Amino acid sequence: MTTLPTFADVQAAARRLEGIAIRTPLLENARVNAKLGGRLFIKAECLQRTGSFKIRGAYNFLASMSEADRKKGAVGWSSGNHAQGLAEAGRLLGVKTTIVMPADAPALKVANTRASGAEVVLYDRVKESREEIGQGIAKKTGATIVPPYDHVWILTGQGTAGLELAEQAKALGVTLDAVAAPCSGGGLSTGTALGVKGIMPNATVHAGEPAGFDDLARSLASGQKEKNAKLSGSICDALLAPEPGDVTFPLAQKVLGPGLVVTDEEVLDAMEVAFREFKIVVEPGGAVALAAALTGKLPVKGRNVAVICSGGNVDHATFIRALSRAKTA
Amino acid sequence: MTTLPTFADVQAAARRLEGIAIRTPLLENARVNAKLGGRLFIKAECLQRTGSFKIRGAYNFLASMSEADRKKGAVGWSSGNHAQGLAEAGRLLGVKTTIVMPADAPALKVANTRASGAEVVLYDRVKESREEIGQGIAKKTGATIVPPYDHVWILTGQGTAGLELAEQAKALGVTLDAVAAPCSGGGLSTGTALGVKGIMPNATVHAGEPAGFDDLARSLASGQKEKNAKLSGSICDALLAPEPGDVTFPLAQKVLGPGLVVTDEEVLDAMEVAFREFKIVVEPGGAVALAAALTGKLPVKGRNVAVICSGGNVDHATFIRALSRAKTA
Repeated sequence: MTTLPTFADVQAAARRLEGIAIRTPLLENARVNAKLGGRLFIKAECLQRTGSFKIRGAYNFLASMSEADRKKGAVGWSSGNHAQGLAEAGRLLGVKTTIVMPADAPALKVANTRASGAEVVLYDRVKESREEIGQGIAKKTGATIVPPYDHVWILTGQGTAGLELAEQAKALGVTLDAVAAPCSGGGLSTGTALGVKGIMPNATVHAGEPAGFDDLARSLASGQKEKNAKLSGSICDALLAPEPGDVTFPLAQKVLGPGLVVTDEEVLDAMEVAFREFKIVVEPGGAVALAAALTGKLPVKGRNVAVICSGGNVDHATFIRALSRAKTA
Repeated sequence: MTTLPTFADVQAAARRLEGIAIRTPLLENARVNAKLGGRLFIKAECLQRTGSFKIRGAYNFLASMSEADRKKGAVGWSSGNHAQGLAEAGRLLGVKTTIVMPADAPALKVANTRASGAEVVLYDRVKESREEIGQGIAKKTGATIVPPYDHVWILTGQGTAGLELAEQAKALGVTLDAVAAPCSGGGLSTGTALGVKGIMPNATVHAGEPAGFDDLARSLASGQKEKNAKLSGSICDALLAPEPGDVTFPLAQKVLGPGLVVTDEEVLDAMEVAFREFKIVVEPGGAVALAAALTGKLPVKGRNVAVICSGGNVDHATFIRALSRAKTA
């Protein structure tokens, strides 16, 4: 792809996802609005099939493949939401999927991926490379590699979340001033920008990242791809991509406003607010954009702002940790 | 009222609630379905304004009052969801509300009720009667008493949740075999039966109750109003009405199937499943119908079943208790 994807590509993805992706609700809370002095909307993608937005991109990818390629299957690597999204998309479309997962991945995530009918290949995080294993499978079987974010079919699929939220806001008579989405490699945030701006061209769209893993925010500021110093160490396990993608970064430069960076503590506080006021379960990585709005890093005062809560696949212990921080419990 | 309310009354309530009540999503989970051998849908009323379905009935009540009566205000008593629903309905319609709440009610619930603009009158649970206080206020000010369930305007308002869920199932091409809703005084369950049966006449509709507080189940079985032996002692704090209502019981006899009774332990397990698989926050009383489906008391195998999760106003400690029971955490 030398040309950047457009709003029309997101609309085409939305047609493919019709009846497949749940039209997740746009939630609002009078008390939170009063506190922030504006209107804050949450697009609750934690309620999406497989517990995160990832099914949107994965399904759009598989549905866009040729029938001949689909027969040869698809392969991906992920220890988290992309694995479950890809496996479930394969089940829905009758495409055999193979997912390369770390041998020390949580048993529940492995079981959930298998429950969708995917073949799970376990690898040793220390001694082996998941990319090499995945590429080996692709070479041997002819399966197509489905990347987690750096592909136009993925990002335009994710962008349907942004398209929907703008449509839902419009149905309420609301013109959004700003939208924010969690960001790892930039698929959701850039796709969301395409989807939102096609309906509300004046809205700014921002990517939220955890402190220490703000490669996109720094890359947007410097004008070139910047890497994170570390590969792990944030509670936001879904947002640890080392650098912006080759497909997503040029698009991000065109469609995204300045990045938003939040701490793990701010993320835990946002998870608690999501529990207490919005009654939804949000995983740490899914709560970064909400955290930016609640802390004022993304100003809500006097404005209409929407944030995507992108997933709810959080383990019990981490959720209890968030609830235990409550000031009002 | 000597004639029983009908489907048309629920439809009229739905028109009043248009743009006011959130059209909460109907959620489904592939793994849960596979485990139960059928299709289970959750109507997520915990995502409703004020965190429970109660705004539906309260708003419908206030909107049905004459303008002259509305100017004189409304009064109600509740320590929980009805208080918040009535207060917020009053705010939305510009009706002054007074809520009589126990002095030992959780500070957060009192604050939330006040945040909607209601005047809160605190009383001593041991020495005073909230009914007497509320009736005194009504007498002095001309305010209308808004009961929590035993009124046709309330139950037909609550019934819009059932109407919506049947419409949502129909849009998915699904004909429901059975529907269940949590039950305290019977407003939600009887209203839901009217709403569901207007669209899917062959569906059976059931009220879920906590063990020891199964007055409606016993009343339906015996054919006369039965009382509960205790007034407290279940984790389901929202479902402790002492006996079926004078308005709701005759209707329940006509429209409800046999009652479903679940233990507090089964309720806590259902809350954990709602967290883990559906990513929603459900309070104990809101989870009884889900618990009935998950335990097989309401059979799902080979059928299409919907349950209402009616509220999410649960304190942090109780939610942590539910999560801590997880077998898969």
